Amino acid sequence: MKIELESIGTIYTEFNEIEGMPIQPTGAKGKKGKIKIKEKYHAGLKDLEEFSHIHLIYLLHKVEGYNLEVKPFMDNTTHGIFATRSPKRPNRIGMSVVKVNKIENNIIYVENVDILNETPLLDIKPYVPQLYEDTIDELKIGWFENNHKKAKFQKSDGRFKH
Amino acid sequence: MKIELESIGTIYTEFNEIEGMPIQPTGAKGKKGKIKIKEKYHAGLKDLEEFSHIHLIYLLHKVEGYNLEVKPFMDNTTHGIFATRSPKRPNRIGMSVVKVNKIENNIIYVENVDILNETPLLDIKPYVPQLYEDTIDELKIGWFENNHKKAKFQKSDGRFKH
Repeated sequence: MKIELESIGTIYTEFNEIEGMPIQPTGAKGKKGKIKIKEKYHAGLKDLEEFSHIHLIYLLHKVEGYNLEVKPFMDNTTHGIFATRSPKRPNRIGMSVVKVNKIENNIIYVENVDILNETPLLDIKPYVPQLYEDTIDELKIGWFENNHKKAKFQKSDGRFKH
Repeated sequence: MKIELESIGTIYTEFNEIEGMPIQPTGAKGKKGKIKIKEKYHAGLKDLEEFSHIHLIYLLHKVEGYNLEVKPFMDNTTHGIFATRSPKRPNRIGMSVVKVNKIENNIIYVENVDILNETPLLDIKPYVPQLYEDTIDELKIGWFENNHKKAKFQKSDGRFKH
C-alpha cells in the first residue's frame, strides 16, 4: 500500500546544513523559525495561537536511505532506529515540539527549532501532555536516561549526512 | 512535491468501527493492541523495550477528505483542524502515545490504544518528555484547558465517519 502525502507548508530556519544543527529541542532553545502554511490550509490555524507549544510532523527531506541500527549523537552504543530520533529512518518522518510565538495570517513564528531550513511540513498537532497523564504511571526512557542532558550541548556532526 | 510513504507495520486493536472508539488515550486506558512490524524492519526495534511509552505515528486510513474547521468531540465550538487531534485532517496523520508491555520478535504488545484496527503504522519514536523540559517555561493548552478531563469518558459518535 503506497501512501501519498503533500506538504501543508514549509518550515524556514537558520539551519541550511545538517552539520552543526542542534540535535534535540533542548539544544535549540531560542532558535527561531517561521512556518509558512499553504493558503488553502490557512483556516485550519484558527485558535492555534492559544497553545504555547505545538507538535510539528515533517519530512526529513535531506535524508536518503535508512539504517535499522544507529549510534545516535547522544550515545556511544547502537540502538534500533525506532528507539531513537535519528533521521535516517524508514519514512524519514521527523517530529518536534516547538514554542509558538505568534501567528500572522498563514505564518507561524516559532522558537526552539531543531529543524533544517525549507523542511516540508506534514501536520501540526497541539502539544497537550495532560492527555496522557492518566495513562502514565511510571515512565522509562531507555538509553536516554543517562544521556538526555547531553542533548543541550551536542551538535550534529554530519553522521547522517547523505 | 508528492511524498510517498509505505507502512512499516500494522496496528491491531479491538476497534473495528470509528463509532464507539475512545477519542483520546486517557479514554483508552487498559485497551490493548498488537503491532506487527514488517520483517524487514525488525532490527529497528532493538532496545525499544527499555522504553515504557512510545509515540506511534500512523495513517488514519479510514478517513476521507478533511475539514479545516471542526467541532471536536471534546468541545462545542469550532477550532482550526491543526488546533485539534480530529482525524479529518490534511495528510490524515495520527499520533498516539501508548504503553509498551512487551516485544516478542517483530510484535509489540501495547496498551492504552485509541487507534482503529488494521491501522498502517508509519513511524515509532521513543516518548521522552524530558527532552522538552528546558524549552517549556509555561504551557498553554488552549481549548483543552477546560475540556481535557472529559476525554476519559467521551466516545466517538461517528462525527468523522466517512
